[in-house]
Amino acid sequence: MNTIREQALACRDAAQVVAALDSTAKRALLRDMAAALEAQTAAVLDANTRDMADAEAKGMQGAMLDRLRLDEARVVSIANALREVAELADPVGVVTRRETRPNGLSVERVRIPLGVIAMIYEARPNVTADAAALCLMAGNGVILRGGSEAIHSNTAIAAALKSALQAHGVPVAALSLVEDLRRETMVELLQLSDIVDLAIPRGGEGLIRFVAEHARVPVIKHYKGVCHLYVDRAADLDLALNLLIDGKTSRPGVCNALETLLVHRDVAEAFLPQAAQALRERGVELRGDERSRTLIPDMQATSDDDYAAEFLDLILAVRVVDNLDDAIAHIRRYGSDHTEVIATADESAAQRFVQAIRSAVVMINASSRFSDGGELGLGAEIGISTTRLHAYGPMGAEALTVERFVVRGEGQVRHPQSRV
Amino acid sequence: MNTIREQALACRDAAQVVAALDSTAKRALLRDMAAALEAQTAAVLDANTRDMADAEAKGMQGAMLDRLRLDEARVVSIANALREVAELADPVGVVTRRETRPNGLSVERVRIPLGVIAMIYEARPNVTADAAALCLMAGNGVILRGGSEAIHSNTAIAAALKSALQAHGVPVAALSLVEDLRRETMVELLQLSDIVDLAIPRGGEGLIRFVAEHARVPVIKHYKGVCHLYVDRAADLDLALNLLIDGKTSRPGVCNALETLLVHRDVAEAFLPQAAQALRERGVELRGDERSRTLIPDMQATSDDDYAAEFLDLILAVRVVDNLDDAIAHIRRYGSDHTEVIATADESAAQRFVQAIRSAVVMINASSRFSDGGELGLGAEIGISTTRLHAYGPMGAEALTVERFVVRGEGQVRHPQSRV
Repeated sequence: MNTIREQALACRDAAQVVAALDSTAKRALLRDMAAALEAQTAAVLDANTRDMADAEAKGMQGAMLDRLRLDEARVVSIANALREVAELADPVGVVTRRETRPNGLSVERVRIPLGVIAMIYEARPNVTADAAALCLMAGNGVILRGGSEAIHSNTAIAAALKSALQAHGVPVAALSLVEDLRRETMVELLQLSDIVDLAIPRGGEGLIRFVAEHARVPVIKHYKGVCHLYVDRAADLDLALNLLIDGKTSRPGVCNALETLLVHRDVAEAFLPQAAQALRERGVELRGDERSRTLIPDMQATSDDDYAAEFLDLILAVRVVDNLDDAIAHIRRYGSDHTEVIATADESAAQRFVQAIRSAVVMINASSRFSDGGELGLGAEIGISTTRLHAYGPMGAEALTVERFVVRGEGQVRHPQSRV
Repeated sequence: MNTIREQALACRDAAQVVAALDSTAKRALLRDMAAALEAQTAAVLDANTRDMADAEAKGMQGAMLDRLRLDEARVVSIANALREVAELADPVGVVTRRETRPNGLSVERVRIPLGVIAMIYEARPNVTADAAALCLMAGNGVILRGGSEAIHSNTAIAAALKSALQAHGVPVAALSLVEDLRRETMVELLQLSDIVDLAIPRGGEGLIRFVAEHARVPVIKHYKGVCHLYVDRAADLDLALNLLIDGKTSRPGVCNALETLLVHRDVAEAFLPQAAQALRERGVELRGDERSRTLIPDMQATSDDDYAAEFLDLILAVRVVDNLDDAIAHIRRYGSDHTEVIATADESAAQRFVQAIRSAVVMINASSRFSDGGELGLGAEIGISTTRLHAYGPMGAEALTVERFVVRGEGQVRHPQSRV
């Protein structure tokens, strides 16, 4: 087996070929990747069966096990996601700004691929295809380092996708699955700062910390979502209740689910009891501060840990605040820069919330569950960045490119006295 | 003295105040910073005299010593640079994209400040004012860690600037000079990943390596410029000679100066002898490969090190290449992703060069010396990024912000069945 450095160097060389593909070629490639994946469904499901057996033997269960599981419908859905990426606007070569300087120089800002992107993720095999597709559509090479639980599934999916690369004459190293899953190999990968342009860790707190600790390459973290709903004094309470129920219960295991409810004291009495009833009917456990427990006496008391927690479960932390500023201070202290919501009919309160909250996504009178690349118009996403640099919030294909300068002149020099 | 962590936390709190200033307030602040600096010229020059004496006692000389030196004219020029930043477009709050989704959600991308920026630099005291001004104009707090050689000058400049912050009711911690210059303190600063949003190292190779090695916060490197001029077969040779002379001799000590000349073999005989003569008349030492030495026999032979070198001096490496592809391969191998120039009248050669070269700035028939924020229309620059992420090439105020999502609805939920 090649070393991880050799593997990464091969990916970098292959990435130059991908960078030179035009939109038509990339779209055709992605569609053929989808077809190849479907054609190899049997092999993929066979590999997945092995992963599932290993995982069950190790005691994995519940949502984890469900994320690992593939079936025919899920393979089709992964393939269709590839086809959707094939239809996205191609960000490469887009001229974002154009200006003629007084000296006649034409200055353009043009998007180019980042180069080589290392995707570090856990047990979801669909990420193998999703991340590969977005990276390739944006003209990059991709190094995929998935979790050991999904290694057989990932290998089978990667093999199918590579068969399409090969058919298109693109070096298969452009899509490079790391099969050596030792931690020290991941560390080595994360330190290849002369080869890898970006590492994107997507997963639990432990993984993110490990990557941040060891990386010498640039990292954009996809960290947890401790998402807040603040119900303002001027909120429409029916609207707020809809946002609360959707945010907490429509899919509690994802990062854009609500974890904490903050309620202005003036509406706490009108809002909290009915909210508690509606949530409890849907199986939600509530934990509250002292003031909220005067309205809902049978709630467990919250701890500081509850406010910092990404429950990913049917649990909600509740707090009554004196005013908007207290809500902002709470979010600044406990938030994870992911997504925060205000329910209010007061435009000045909304504006103040937007101004003071620095999270990647701020929603006014809309559910936190819309914090998603597809829902916000990116077409697809490689994840949701909580790093306030380069891309912040849902990251689509464009976020896998960077603008650079292309300048055209007719012989302009900066110091004309240097002319011969 | 506070610990560096306390200092950074104070800067983060102060940055929230800066983030909330409107454009008018920021412009007035920057103008008053300029006035305060001029008013305190005597104190600044006095401090600089101490730095100069220390530096000379330590044996510093030449360009290094010149970069450290301040006089009345230079203080005025630093103050005027602050006034220029005060006139820049304010990037904060700019809506870069706006879309209404099919479900009626209004999705905006809006620029917000990054937060806290740590600037790590060497002996040029003007960076203290320049970096502070751009960071503040973009709504950020700034932590300035300059070189020990300039500590008295930097402290005096920072004191002047802070007096203006104070007069405007902005916490002075928004502009925070690190006075504890121990290496371990810099390491601690670079690892404050919960406080510092971006570190920008600007300086020599040793500094950049040190920062990259120790940082746990995001880093955008401002690395060396090994800039190339490729004279194509289809070049206008007079034009090419002008670019060569301007690029190499107009200011050899800066990062956008040319370091290597690549010449297509078909024009080598016509170009190289006259180029050598013109450069030598201007004091340039030439080092060439075997083929170029057949045309200019009295050149020293180049080593691999010469091609990788940022001479920052009147030295030029020369190589004859067989074709455009060889020129591209040379640049890919030895370049530093900074700035490359092609001289050609052949549009397809120019396009191929632009496509294949991934450097931050690519020039067609224009001098490398235009690779500068002011020259390319940014108004001012905090430096030139050679990191292919977030900002690539000259970085102005806009590059010190990031886009995030602001979403407005009327109660939209993702799963309407969760409505009460």
